[in-house]
Amino acid sequence: MTTVLIRVINPNTTASMTASIGRAARTVAGPGTVVEAVNPATGPASIESHYDEALAVPGLLAEIRREGASAHVVACFGDPGLDAARELASAPVIGIAEAAMHAAAFLGRGFSVVTTLARTTGRARDLAHAYGFGERCRGVHSCEIPVLALETDPAARAVITERCRRALETDGSDAIVLGCAGMADLCSGISATLGVPVVDGVAAATVFAESLVRLRLATGKQGEFALPPAKAYTGILAPWALVQ
Amino acid sequence: MTTVLIRVINPNTTASMTASIGRAARTVAGPGTVVEAVNPATGPASIESHYDEALAVPGLLAEIRREGASAHVVACFGDPGLDAARELASAPVIGIAEAAMHAAAFLGRGFSVVTTLARTTGRARDLAHAYGFGERCRGVHSCEIPVLALETDPAARAVITERCRRALETDGSDAIVLGCAGMADLCSGISATLGVPVVDGVAAATVFAESLVRLRLATGKQGEFALPPAKAYTGILAPWALVQ
Amino acid sequence: MTTVLIRVINPNTTASMTASIGRAARTVAGPGTVVEAVNPATGPASIESHYDEALAVPGLLAEIRREGASAHVVACFGDPGLDAARELASAPVIGIAEAAMHAAAFLGRGFSVVTTLARTTGRARDLAHAYGFGERCRGVHSCEIPVLALETDPAARAVITERCRRALETDGSDAIVLGCAGMADLCSGISATLGVPVVDGVAAATVFAESLVRLRLATGKQGEFALPPAKAYTGILAPWALVQ
Amino acid sequence: MTTVLIRVINPNTTASMTASIGRAARTVAGPGTVVEAVNPATGPASIESHYDEALAVPGLLAEIRREGASAHVVACFGDPGLDAARELASAPVIGIAEAAMHAAAFLGRGFSVVTTLARTTGRARDLAHAYGFGERCRGVHSCEIPVLALETDPAARAVITERCRRALETDGSDAIVLGCAGMADLCSGISATLGVPVVDGVAAATVFAESLVRLRLATGKQGEFALPPAKAYTGILAPWALVQ
Amino acid sequence: MTTVLIRVINPNTTASMTASIGRAARTVAGPGTVVEAVNPATGPASIESHYDEALAVPGLLAEIRREGASAHVVACFGDPGLDAARELASAPVIGIAEAAMHAAAFLGRGFSVVTTLARTTGRARDLAHAYGFGERCRGVHSCEIPVLALETDPAARAVITERCRRALETDGSDAIVLGCAGMADLCSGISATLGVPVVDGVAAATVFAESLVRLRLATGKQGEFALPPAKAYTGILAPWALVQ
Amino acid sequence: MTTVLIRVINPNTTASMTASIGRAARTVAGPGTVVEAVNPATGPASIESHYDEALAVPGLLAEIRREGASAHVVACFGDPGLDAARELASAPVIGIAEAAMHAAAFLGRGFSVVTTLARTTGRARDLAHAYGFGERCRGVHSCEIPVLALETDPAARAVITERCRRALETDGSDAIVLGCAGMADLCSGISATLGVPVVDGVAAATVFAESLVRLRLATGKQGEFALPPAKAYTGILAPWALVQ
Repeated sequence: MTTVLIRVINPNTTASMTASIGRAARTVAGPGTVVEAVNPATGPASIESHYDEALAVPGLLAEIRREGASAHVVACFGDPGLDAARELASAPVIGIAEAAMHAAAFLGRGFSVVTTLARTTGRARDLAHAYGFGERCRGVHSCEIPVLALETDPAARAVITERCRRALETDGSDAIVLGCAGMADLCSGISATLGVPVVDGVAAATVFAESLVRLRLATGKQGEFALPPAKAYTGILAPWALVQ
Repeated sequence: MTTVLIRVINPNTTASMTASIGRAARTVAGPGTVVEAVNPATGPASIESHYDEALAVPGLLAEIRREGASAHVVACFGDPGLDAARELASAPVIGIAEAAMHAAAFLGRGFSVVTTLARTTGRARDLAHAYGFGERCRGVHSCEIPVLALETDPAARAVITERCRRALETDGSDAIVLGCAGMADLCSGISATLGVPVVDGVAAATVFAESLVRLRLATGKQGEFALPPAKAYTGILAPWALVQ
Repeated sequence: MTTVLIRVINPNTTASMTASIGRAARTVAGPGTVVEAVNPATGPASIESHYDEALAVPGLLAEIRREGASAHVVACFGDPGLDAARELASAPVIGIAEAAMHAAAFLGRGFSVVTTLARTTGRARDLAHAYGFGERCRGVHSCEIPVLALETDPAARAVITERCRRALETDGSDAIVLGCAGMADLCSGISATLGVPVVDGVAAATVFAESLVRLRLATGKQGEFALPPAKAYTGILAPWALVQ
Repeated sequence: MTTVLIRVINPNTTASMTASIGRAARTVAGPGTVVEAVNPATGPASIESHYDEALAVPGLLAEIRREGASAHVVACFGDPGLDAARELASAPVIGIAEAAMHAAAFLGRGFSVVTTLARTTGRARDLAHAYGFGERCRGVHSCEIPVLALETDPAARAVITERCRRALETDGSDAIVLGCAGMADLCSGISATLGVPVVDGVAAATVFAESLVRLRLATGKQGEFALPPAKAYTGILAPWALVQ
Repeated sequence: MTTVLIRVINPNTTASMTASIGRAARTVAGPGTVVEAVNPATGPASIESHYDEALAVPGLLAEIRREGASAHVVACFGDPGLDAARELASAPVIGIAEAAMHAAAFLGRGFSVVTTLARTTGRARDLAHAYGFGERCRGVHSCEIPVLALETDPAARAVITERCRRALETDGSDAIVLGCAGMADLCSGISATLGVPVVDGVAAATVFAESLVRLRLATGKQGEFALPPAKAYTGILAPWALVQ
Repeated sequence: MTTVLIRVINPNTTASMTASIGRAARTVAGPGTVVEAVNPATGPASIESHYDEALAVPGLLAEIRREGASAHVVACFGDPGLDAARELASAPVIGIAEAAMHAAAFLGRGFSVVTTLARTTGRARDLAHAYGFGERCRGVHSCEIPVLALETDPAARAVITERCRRALETDGSDAIVLGCAGMADLCSGISATLGVPVVDGVAAATVFAESLVRLRLATGKQGEFALPPAKAYTGILAPWALVQ
């Protein structure tokens, strides 16, 4: 059995967050699997808006483009650039919002998402609809803690746990999805406190990526997700041009 | 690391099909995982109607009820008894239609299902809707080969491959889902012939069941899927009564 | 005009509830119609979980299989085994949740369901979606009275009436659907108290079953709902095998 | 038991069609029921456009407003003025498209509508969506026979039967809904020829209207469908003004 | 450049409201555009029910039928008679609910509608669904001020503003749609007070009608919206008959 | 009246296409309106994949960020970066797919999209769903002409016209939407040939952008579309960082 290499890409440029995402992935990766946690060379320090997300994508795609991965994980809850990554890669690609919602769908009838800032809840709902979980996703709730404060704010754990508790009451959900790659560490603690399954997208995407490798399945490449046509690119993004 | 035991339950009573389902599951199971392939002591020899499905469920639930599994797979494409199984089990439970559709959703925008008899296509569409894949599931197609003939009909492979080819043309799909546990052996061959990913539900459910075990996630038990209330059962099904 | 026989099947095995269901049906049946209220010889004493529902179906189907009915009513609000019953019977089959929701749809834009236990509300919502009333069904509410306590709990009427009142306020509905065959007696009282139409599924299913008989309409039998293919059945469910 | 009076209103002004609608209703009405078939004093001779439909509504509402009916049927497949009629009447009101689609929903998973002119198919689809049958209604097909030619065109029966046959093939439906009050006579013949249930809306609405009367259910009058507020009306429609 | 004539039709017969609607339209009309504000000769003094709406349509259609307009606006938030008007006119026709919802869709992810009477909220939700904005329309709220009291009730502005404020809190919307032609004057004031965009349908429909004229686009006339077939009309509505 | 400046941004870097887009916009712009047609300094020469689209966004956002526009148009049929642009700009922003679909929705019940390459049809369907036009958009068809060949391929006009004709037959639509900014010149010709309204998104977006300016409406800025939080950006995209 050859080594499986899962490339887990933190699309923001904050190295400490990349390291913590790598730890979360390695905790669940199987015996024969190597997790490579990386972040782009260019882009925003955190992703908290459509604007940040859009500007994270070029750097993310440069990581996707590098050879050698058996599968890729896009480790930001907005799943930025997922369609483009699937065109570019021959290996499978999974987003952490996508993976977390798929996992939660196996655990009951409905789930609630608890995320960082209210301004990102629209994107989470959008993704739930796009993935087919518009009914199952019963609520998207924010705790108003910025992404990078998750690592440093001593009150974060208590605030997020309380937000999860209220979400369960309001939504009558069977499971919680944590809506930020920076929340991975909180998963088991909140689950123990509240007595419901709590899903971290980084872990879920890692095991599902391994699953697809094990199933020898990857993105269908005969239609929409075929390798993009080669063409000229101008200006500072010229290095992103594909050549035949 | 303790042993992971995946109980793969063929809900019909045909032992040769149980054996072949077991082989399909073992092919993709991870190193530390034991696959236990079983079938019920009572019920129909194959499942080709809502009636067969309903009568397969008591036997299936008896298998779910036995102790010791880390996770359960329901290995019939109608996913019979899935909600009841989730109530009954503390371990996670996955259906093969559910697993196959989730896997296909990671591989592109749309998939086509190719199954046995036309009379079962309504159930497949029902499940696609219930799981959130009403849009992604672009067509459900039958090849009019009865379930047990899959093992013996020498023309089955060619007929099914041709049906898949036409489904791809009609639906413009990125992937194929094979809609019967008895089709597991055909998966890689059809994929090689047609150049698209082809998903077998038994394999998909096995790796996703392992994934949930690895993630320490199981059905939420605080609401709809809590253990059913104990009560009196009458007649030949009296042994199915739960006691507190 | 030949006699019309409506077989109303209480899928649980509690004879007193069967009797009360029979009374509710006879109250609305037309002059030339005979109501036969029956329950299965095997299965759970009440249906309060997916598990109970699954185990009620074999007994229910044995009743459907008996000759002589002009139409069948499945008298449990989870509409267990409805698709299988439609395959098996040549006469029309109607479920009481189905009938109640259809009736409520004629009475305004939205309705609220008030049922027994919270754990069954997911099934009720599922059915509303399956029948096309996902929009019209504005809420499913529970009063946490077990099914068999409906007959004996002196507070039941007041609790259920109050739950209906709050449902109307919350949902802005035009009508109430009572979500349990055991609530039939409460219908007119709650309607008088609250001033809105209140639908009991047993009564609704009885008159709609008569209606289909009068229209000479029954389940289409050329596709999904044709008589199931005959085949071997093993074990204690062997008597359920169909023969050609 | 008091007499039940079902007022069946043909919203166009063609008396021969009113007579034939009355016959269709009486064929299925129960022993104690009187059918009163009427048409408005003003409006179009047939309804084949949104324009005709809009101009049929004042005359229709004048018939609804008359006292004495136990229930009303709106006997045009566009269900014109149904919401307004429900506001106006204290007795229940049912449209024939509504009734036919509800009846067809009891007969299988999907139905096809076969109607007169292609220009009316959009309205039929609209109604299917509004009633919750967007999924179940698998196709709306026209045979390009104008409404009033149904009574006189000797080829009508053959053309419509053939259109139904093709609709079944294309849509894989379990039942046919005939999409015009003028097609009531063809119902049993087409059903016999094609071997599937065929629903006529006039008959379906008549028995469902009786059903609601038997259930003592009528439109909820506490919200949207309360009697409209009285106010001044100007010009030739002044007689339609309600007074308190 | 030829003169553009926008006919803005107030479907009720209250001339003071017609005048105020005309002012709202002229405020936003472009330099080369003439606004003709009219109301029907027959029908209700205000539109507050399905009944009023149905009876307003004949008068409205008589105004649509007059020659000379480059485009028509139907200036009641129920968009009465819109489909019929599109059949009748060769020029484009826009409803004010339709226009307001389209405008609001350009301004963010979700909007809230604030309207007059609770009994009209069902119609507003219906329209939101019909136009494709079922998801974007997050709530429809009433302030229980009758239509004609908007002009005279000194508290109206404060009540409506407060209702808008609460709607924003409840719904988390990005914009407000005012749900009555009589609220046009309040638009900019409420926007200034609450700091969100507030849409008046009369203004929105006027500029979108001009837009379609500028784009040389009008209703497609090859199918459903072709000129209705000519036919006999009977009684007081005989003048509405179309002749070939 | 102050000058209205509509900035029409071609998100690819091909100047000849920018010029032609500018002409299309100016043809429909009102008397007091200045159209500024621009393209980014960096990015792909044409947009024919999710990858191209993602890499076009940074350059596009740099154009959005420049001061002085009354409104912005994003002139590529994939509407790239629209959410991010709405966060960034205080002026309204409209995408050409969005505008074209909104315009087509005013013209009948259904429309068909005819676009360049099959691989982009998934994105067009995605947008139709996102904008609420999942039902109205009856088909998305490709003619397999690359974007830049639209300017040079002498057969393009005939091929696209024929594709539109077949789309109308298949879909039964009332209008055509041309699915590429490079097709603007073909609009009136195809409309004249086929006798149906044909919508060009550049023209539609230009007049709708003017409309919003005239209505004094712009993106709601209190929630999801508030200006993004300022933060550090690393690497070649550092100039895109916002500062407070």
